[in-house]
Amino acid sequence: MRATLMYGAGDVRVETVPDARLIEPTDALVRITRSCICGSDLWPYRKMPSTETGRRMGHEFIGVVDGVGRDVRTVRRGDLVVAPFVWSDGTCVFCREGLQTSCLHGGGWGSPGVDGGQGEAVRVPQADGTLVVLPVGRDDVLMPSLLTLSDVMGTGHHAALAARVEPGNIVAVVGDGAVGLCGVIAARRLGAEQIIMLGRHADRITRAREFGATDIVSERGDEAIERVRELTGDLGAHSVLECVGYEESVKTALSITRAGGAVGRVGVPQDESIPLAKASFFDNITIGGGPAPVRAYIEELLPDVLEGRIQPGRVFDRVTNLEAVPDGYRAMNDRESIKVMIEP
Amino acid sequence: MRATLMYGAGDVRVETVPDARLIEPTDALVRITRSCICGSDLWPYRKMPSTETGRRMGHEFIGVVDGVGRDVRTVRRGDLVVAPFVWSDGTCVFCREGLQTSCLHGGGWGSPGVDGGQGEAVRVPQADGTLVVLPVGRDDVLMPSLLTLSDVMGTGHHAALAARVEPGNIVAVVGDGAVGLCGVIAARRLGAEQIIMLGRHADRITRAREFGATDIVSERGDEAIERVRELTGDLGAHSVLECVGYEESVKTALSITRAGGAVGRVGVPQDESIPLAKASFFDNITIGGGPAPVRAYIEELLPDVLEGRIQPGRVFDRVTNLEAVPDGYRAMNDRESIKVMIEP
Repeated sequence: MRATLMYGAGDVRVETVPDARLIEPTDALVRITRSCICGSDLWPYRKMPSTETGRRMGHEFIGVVDGVGRDVRTVRRGDLVVAPFVWSDGTCVFCREGLQTSCLHGGGWGSPGVDGGQGEAVRVPQADGTLVVLPVGRDDVLMPSLLTLSDVMGTGHHAALAARVEPGNIVAVVGDGAVGLCGVIAARRLGAEQIIMLGRHADRITRAREFGATDIVSERGDEAIERVRELTGDLGAHSVLECVGYEESVKTALSITRAGGAVGRVGVPQDESIPLAKASFFDNITIGGGPAPVRAYIEELLPDVLEGRIQPGRVFDRVTNLEAVPDGYRAMNDRESIKVMIEP
Repeated sequence: MRATLMYGAGDVRVETVPDARLIEPTDALVRITRSCICGSDLWPYRKMPSTETGRRMGHEFIGVVDGVGRDVRTVRRGDLVVAPFVWSDGTCVFCREGLQTSCLHGGGWGSPGVDGGQGEAVRVPQADGTLVVLPVGRDDVLMPSLLTLSDVMGTGHHAALAARVEPGNIVAVVGDGAVGLCGVIAARRLGAEQIIMLGRHADRITRAREFGATDIVSERGDEAIERVRELTGDLGAHSVLECVGYEESVKTALSITRAGGAVGRVGVPQDESIPLAKASFFDNITIGGGPAPVRAYIEELLPDVLEGRIQPGRVFDRVTNLEAVPDGYRAMNDRESIKVMIEP
């Protein structure tokens, strides 16, 4: 079968790899109908050291079950399923608490022996704990929005929960990528009154406004902080969603948070420490977040997608086939595209 | 009147200063009956640069109201009152939300023009927002426990809330000073099932056990982390109270927190950054806390003190008069004493 591999910074190739197949009795085999490229795929795209063997890519996908191991109970051949960006057993102490990203027997797509989502098919370990059946046809018009439940919509929701968004809150979103845009949707869905997007790309700003952003701050650094202060009666935002991951963006996030407020960080941290330890302490700012347990959120968000109350699929602004995935990486890295959907 | 001043590291003096007196119509004049030395007073005791003028010390006190300004409504001459470690107006947006430490018109004892608690009397600004009347006599046997409502008991409670202690939780407390010990009381009060105290001084360990600690870890660094992991089925503690403030102790706190758990930091940070930005992210650990809004907690904790359900006053193991305060600082800094009470 064909699948995407990364061999180093800027070096993405689509190659023929061994066919995905059932190995464990808890596996399912899924033929992919939709997948996509994630903002977090751009971190290795920018700085992964060169390797001989390459790394299988992709962690967001929807597909049709083509076979299941003998212990699988909740999905069957022919089901259309969505997969979270990590697989999990659904039964360990963390899964039972709804923190499937810390599953004691889970793992990540593309790790050794496990397929990636940017390919033709995937062996899904722990299928019962991982997959969620979708009650629609494989080419339903809702497919882009359903695909975001794999990662970005659940991640935006996680940022909003970690930032403790509540009805009436002032929310700020740092980062205008697909996750930040889904953070706007999540904040609005949770009842935020004012939603300030920090971003400066015209296409993303347009999308943010459509999703519910009430204010756009396009300045950077200290000027951005000053502008948010002006917009919030000098107090800052109750809830700040950090959707980038650089120390500088965390610093901005903490600097625009109101005393007693919270920062929800979902941007993968690129640095070893969190800045402003003293200022955030004296202001009683809470810092939460991490990899979103999207498996826990799919059931919560799915009705909103099916009934059209949220349309996170609008973060996709380009569709490609599998062979053109390398150019999709380039387009996202060059900011030509917000997020690329793959139809293998 | 006599009052305590610090002139630099290790240089504490009791001197004659101008008598405290009413200035603003919102002031109260309080004659101090009990005050104390705080662990946080030891930070300047260890590293304050020398000054010519000195700095007024003390931020925890109980006293009798000796006069009030014309706008004061809630306290009157003769009332016995306890003061939180900061004063606050009680009416601003933050006070109304219960975050009096961020009061828009508040401030700290000993700041320019404001008396400190380690003296004979104090002008209390914003008396209505600040003081709480105590329904006991000035020499009641509960005085030590009531005095802890000024700071350490409320601060331990804040750490426990920020660390999200809930019934049945496993809690770890980093720091065996008076705040850490009050953190043990707070964790037990909130229903923690297992309370692990990280500490190594015999007198403090004894107190911790009396207050409800179920396990003591006296190792340091990586060995302490390993030991806590053993005590928690290798998962870590749901809630960790960081009651020290060094980067190293924050690192220990984050390293013993279970995935999805929380660290409540109340130790005043001595460093500019929070370590383990990546590890805490991937484990979805929440970092909260800051200066405790003890004004909000006095009303919650007072009934427990009055009815003897908690006895935080047992953190005091030495009593001194005002003239001997400098030796009290020395004793606490040398770890001869956990916490020193002052009877002026």
